Amino acid sequence: METLSIKTHSRTEMIDITPMVADAVKAQGIEEGVCILYNPHTTAAITINEGADPSVQSDIRKALSGLIPPHDHPQIHYEHTEGNADSHIKSSLIGTSQLVIISNSQLVLGTWQSIFFCEFDGPRTRKVHLKILRG
Amino acid sequence: METLSIKTHSRTEMIDITPMVADAVKAQGIEEGVCILYNPHTTAAITINEGADPSVQSDIRKALSGLIPPHDHPQIHYEHTEGNADSHIKSSLIGTSQLVIISNSQLVLGTWQSIFFCEFDGPRTRKVHLKILRG
Amino acid sequence: METLSIKTHSRTEMIDITPMVADAVKAQGIEEGVCILYNPHTTAAITINEGADPSVQSDIRKALSGLIPPHDHPQIHYEHTEGNADSHIKSSLIGTSQLVIISNSQLVLGTWQSIFFCEFDGPRTRKVHLKILRG
Repeated sequence: METLSIKTHSRTEMIDITPMVADAVKAQGIEEGVCILYNPHTTAAITINEGADPSVQSDIRKALSGLIPPHDHPQIHYEHTEGNADSHIKSSLIGTSQLVIISNSQLVLGTWQSIFFCEFDGPRTRKVHLKILRG
Repeated sequence: METLSIKTHSRTEMIDITPMVADAVKAQGIEEGVCILYNPHTTAAITINEGADPSVQSDIRKALSGLIPPHDHPQIHYEHTEGNADSHIKSSLIGTSQLVIISNSQLVLGTWQSIFFCEFDGPRTRKVHLKILRG
Repeated sequence: METLSIKTHSRTEMIDITPMVADAVKAQGIEEGVCILYNPHTTAAITINEGADPSVQSDIRKALSGLIPPHDHPQIHYEHTEGNADSHIKSSLIGTSQLVIISNSQLVLGTWQSIFFCEFDGPRTRKVHLKILRG
């Protein structure tokens, strides 16, 4: 297992970590297998979506914040008193981990796919664990 | 790794791919392990849910379209200009991959579970990558 | 593969199964690998989120029930006639499986992370399959 470090810059943000992940996979020298990416935080997530047009990331972030409004929204009442109940809920909706198949030492991503770390309660310094299973 | 080909017929659709997956697993002859199903598209997803009553699929599709309205909905504004921002958002909510345990060369699914390819921007010809890890 | 048994007590509930999972991992004596947790039910799910403050679980359950109202809600019409269409939809939103990295025979969870079985149509007796891949 190795751990990537990610610096986020705002409360909600999607950061393309594909190059970091691809470099780590190449460095481990495993030709065939599955790369597991695990987010150890409860107010963040990992997703795979379009990386070419940044408006897709913006639409995802806005849609999530529309469905799960922030703590200070006038029509919402969360029990959790730390001001980040929305961030926890988004984390469970998007998911804690992702996996990508490795073939010929490369990530098998679709043409338009990038891997995103999803910050829902930043800015912070975050971690993503990376583990490769051979096979 | 092998790749399944799936033909979809409408803009949103859930297609039961369980028989294709079960056949591929049997053909590979691996008795114990985990089957990974990976969708390389950014406007589609894979889920596991009830296969017996088609109304469940219909309710899932309608609920998603209620939460994430299409591009031409009067009260919505998406930044992404390709008319499929909703499809990208649904993809991240449902998820890019699924895994199923294999025991005795069979998928270990629950009594009512089927594996569905979720089309959110069809009709198209789509792919699903299938990879088995032994163990 | 082994199977954990979980007793739920109400229609929607999040049950912290981290101690059961940690014990099962320790008992199998595998030092390095990945633990796969698989829910074979179509009206339940598994998620990983904050375990310290129970209000987070309550906020997640309430937010989901706000987005996906129950069958008897006056403004909703589901086609599925068994009264649990909402439970099926929530299952696909949260997800059927989760994975956790194992290092030194321990689950590599973040400081605040616990593993939760999510009941969306209880009370029932439920199962979670646990499978460890070495590596």
